[in-house]
Amino acid sequence: MIQNLLEGKRGIIFGALNDKSIAWKVAEKAKQQGAVFTLSNTAAACRMGEVRQLSELTGAELIPADATSVEDLTTVFSRSQEILGGKIDFVLHSIGMSLNVRKKHLYNDLDYNFLDKTLDISAISFHKMLQVAYKLDAIAEWGSVVALTYVAAQRTLFGYNDMADAKALLESIGRSFGYIYGCEKKVRINTISQSPTMTTAGSGVAGFDGLMDFSDRMSPLGNASAEDCANFCVTMFSDLTRKITMQNLFHDGGFSSMGMSERAMSQYNKSFEANDSQK
Amino acid sequence: MIQNLLEGKRGIIFGALNDKSIAWKVAEKAKQQGAVFTLSNTAAACRMGEVRQLSELTGAELIPADATSVEDLTTVFSRSQEILGGKIDFVLHSIGMSLNVRKKHLYNDLDYNFLDKTLDISAISFHKMLQVAYKLDAIAEWGSVVALTYVAAQRTLFGYNDMADAKALLESIGRSFGYIYGCEKKVRINTISQSPTMTTAGSGVAGFDGLMDFSDRMSPLGNASAEDCANFCVTMFSDLTRKITMQNLFHDGGFSSMGMSERAMSQYNKSFEANDSQK
Amino acid sequence: MIQNLLEGKRGIIFGALNDKSIAWKVAEKAKQQGAVFTLSNTAAACRMGEVRQLSELTGAELIPADATSVEDLTTVFSRSQEILGGKIDFVLHSIGMSLNVRKKHLYNDLDYNFLDKTLDISAISFHKMLQVAYKLDAIAEWGSVVALTYVAAQRTLFGYNDMADAKALLESIGRSFGYIYGCEKKVRINTISQSPTMTTAGSGVAGFDGLMDFSDRMSPLGNASAEDCANFCVTMFSDLTRKITMQNLFHDGGFSSMGMSERAMSQYNKSFEANDSQK
Amino acid sequence: MIQNLLEGKRGIIFGALNDKSIAWKVAEKAKQQGAVFTLSNTAAACRMGEVRQLSELTGAELIPADATSVEDLTTVFSRSQEILGGKIDFVLHSIGMSLNVRKKHLYNDLDYNFLDKTLDISAISFHKMLQVAYKLDAIAEWGSVVALTYVAAQRTLFGYNDMADAKALLESIGRSFGYIYGCEKKVRINTISQSPTMTTAGSGVAGFDGLMDFSDRMSPLGNASAEDCANFCVTMFSDLTRKITMQNLFHDGGFSSMGMSERAMSQYNKSFEANDSQK
Repeated sequence: MIQNLLEGKRGIIFGALNDKSIAWKVAEKAKQQGAVFTLSNTAAACRMGEVRQLSELTGAELIPADATSVEDLTTVFSRSQEILGGKIDFVLHSIGMSLNVRKKHLYNDLDYNFLDKTLDISAISFHKMLQVAYKLDAIAEWGSVVALTYVAAQRTLFGYNDMADAKALLESIGRSFGYIYGCEKKVRINTISQSPTMTTAGSGVAGFDGLMDFSDRMSPLGNASAEDCANFCVTMFSDLTRKITMQNLFHDGGFSSMGMSERAMSQYNKSFEANDSQK
Repeated sequence: MIQNLLEGKRGIIFGALNDKSIAWKVAEKAKQQGAVFTLSNTAAACRMGEVRQLSELTGAELIPADATSVEDLTTVFSRSQEILGGKIDFVLHSIGMSLNVRKKHLYNDLDYNFLDKTLDISAISFHKMLQVAYKLDAIAEWGSVVALTYVAAQRTLFGYNDMADAKALLESIGRSFGYIYGCEKKVRINTISQSPTMTTAGSGVAGFDGLMDFSDRMSPLGNASAEDCANFCVTMFSDLTRKITMQNLFHDGGFSSMGMSERAMSQYNKSFEANDSQK
Repeated sequence: MIQNLLEGKRGIIFGALNDKSIAWKVAEKAKQQGAVFTLSNTAAACRMGEVRQLSELTGAELIPADATSVEDLTTVFSRSQEILGGKIDFVLHSIGMSLNVRKKHLYNDLDYNFLDKTLDISAISFHKMLQVAYKLDAIAEWGSVVALTYVAAQRTLFGYNDMADAKALLESIGRSFGYIYGCEKKVRINTISQSPTMTTAGSGVAGFDGLMDFSDRMSPLGNASAEDCANFCVTMFSDLTRKITMQNLFHDGGFSSMGMSERAMSQYNKSFEANDSQK
Repeated sequence: MIQNLLEGKRGIIFGALNDKSIAWKVAEKAKQQGAVFTLSNTAAACRMGEVRQLSELTGAELIPADATSVEDLTTVFSRSQEILGGKIDFVLHSIGMSLNVRKKHLYNDLDYNFLDKTLDISAISFHKMLQVAYKLDAIAEWGSVVALTYVAAQRTLFGYNDMADAKALLESIGRSFGYIYGCEKKVRINTISQSPTMTTAGSGVAGFDGLMDFSDRMSPLGNASAEDCANFCVTMFSDLTRKITMQNLFHDGGFSSMGMSERAMSQYNKSFEANDSQK
């Protein structure tokens, strides 16, 4: 079945690192649906073979940028318009990093310089992106901007640490800027709250395997994969979802609306049998 | 641009009354996207010229049914599978009615027989539909069910009356059944919370015009129209949104995430000038 | 430490059955804090020794009533005002029952007569109570009404069945009536969403023990007890919380804001060790 | 009526500036209820006559501190324990400031140095406070920490600017730290989302008067005052609310659960008459 949901659309995709990345899958799906786009990531990431390969596969030019630098972001939006021949129709923000997580600082022992970096890279970068685009008038009317987030912004998951706060800030920025950009340019801004995904970033979180299993058994449809997420992103970039803005949309197989599933509960209950059998 | 998002899909659309109905627009869009489907409404509605016209326009057979009757709903799902030649891929529930609203009973003077009817027609009908489908195993794997709702389920709007409670119940049924149907058949169930829409039903609510204006000025993208909503429904019925379930999705131009917009506030503030000029 | 938070206040407490009941604890605490009140329950419950004992312990007259009967509720509010010598300052609704749960009908095999009863007893009774009180003008200005609910209204817990929908309806009624009663009489209406509690009602839910354990390990402060809940109810009935209305307040040791705790996860993970050790 | 809800309790109150401040009212009420506490504010604020006057009125020692300085906060918690003779039972965080608001930078033209300051002062200070207290083990078991916030964290209000994002971050910090502090020390952490209040901080927001009026007409009980809020804080600091944690509690006369009230709508509708009468 051939679809062309993004025919004629120009985009910028931030954050594809390797073929496990959600951004990578979004790039593939966007191409299939007829879009043209540029890719952006840090200079270090852009030197990696895999990112260059995605660039070739999708015919998308690679623009290195530090997403916390207003100057670099200005370059990305200016160059992308030149390369793609017009205003931008869609943007994906798939960026997040916490040195507190990496360096194993617990949440009650945060390094505040690291926290500043977590917020700057994972959340404020989204504001900078939008403010740069706004000032350049780089996004076309009815353009669609999506940032990826996680349910930890609403509910605490041990080990997710200061990334939870960064995601809450990210979602708030989406709403706040969505108001202005919507009123003035009809640009819509949403966040997609995705199942835990075994990306390079995800696998850094402590106890991630157990969490993936629990989340999968709690979710009636199981965890959503990176590819599933990319499909949903395509619909959000298309003209069929024009009146959705300032929303946080859960794409998680139902996890966010679950209190307890029979599958997860019965697995949980086995833990007591274990105890018993070991006595 | 030709799309075929619903190619090969079979559906049932409940609640199209006239060309202002959201269900009517969904029928038109679903056909454009390659779906085949049946239409269902009450026997009285099915005798109306407009409904018959939609049936002809879309080549969709009309199956009269009282949506509160398990027997009638069984007929709809059985017949639809026969007519369409297989299991059902998508269902739209766009049904709601309150005699308390119609007969102008205020919320602190409800007639409890009317309330039972409001809940039965507007919410429990959704459970009946799903239970009938489940027992007949009438919905295909990864099928998608959508019911239309309104933000009054979360926030009180004077005049919306017992329909607010019915919508809260409807949304809860979507979650509760979404869990079971998801686990057992991978069927996903969501509600779409749409802007106030000038349908035949909407226009019965007291003070609806003022509310439409306020809602429009509060929403960065303005109120979503019935046609906008139909476009979104198409994406929810498509295979691109397979991992979304048990959600209430706001399709409302941003209204649900607004506390106060400059546009609405400046209109509101004019009311005081009015007072002053009349002194 | 002597407190007199409810000195001079008159109340009605619906739903005390035995000393495990939250309503029972509320009666005890309300008395300690200086309130006078009546108790109401079904005629069958009122004949039970335990309920009569509570009546004696607290000096509270017992008024039998079917909470789905407008006539009976009228009697309760009229008699209570006579007995207590004035308008009512606080009301507790702690009533819920599902025949579908009792008769083990799964949620995809509901008996619709039972569902009607579930909704009538567990949710619509709250509206009837409020409408009766409103028409009699039986609640004093700044009076406070509380109904007990559970997180299943927002998130599906397998086995909670149609009570989840009833609680969603109950919470909506709280908001809808809270608007009117607040505007016109300054009466505030809230729901308290309590931890799973080992009451007679709670213990009827399938798999309740495992759920209690999971909930306890997920909640940073552990499950809230019936007595804890009664303490919170006292603050909600007092004059110190006058501007809180139309809210659903989680009193649950933090459960509702948790995605995953280390304690619950490590218990969950033991289930896999069990499997391993059994190989 | 004498109450002694906070008898024997020791607290720290951050952010009292003058008698319009919520923190000021909390200090007065806490004293009435039997608590002893210290006050903290910036060095500049501590030199003001009003703050010194509150210190005298309540017999509370004043400890100047920059709430973004870990060192200063360490002093506050150490000194407070010495002065009050034991661990701290309650803490109020009522701190917020945005240079972007003050310098009239619109949200699409933020100064990023100012944004860093907004987040540091208004949100990260809360984390620093909690981390300092945690490391010093300065808060007693079942201690209660409250930070004040605003509905702008969930819904965009034009003119509230980057303070909306700061409040979203603040609320997330409350949840994240509430998890750890609850598990390990039974300390509970909540945020109270208060009506717009005509404090010195509030009155800096653009269009604040109109918003106050709208909010008041939307709220069934009207806007909650600073004094109302202080009463609620007292209950949250007391032993009667021990099992509430990680919550954002709306204390707003019902505003957060309103979509549209008849009072606000009828005021809004007058704006059109104004137009008509001017024709």
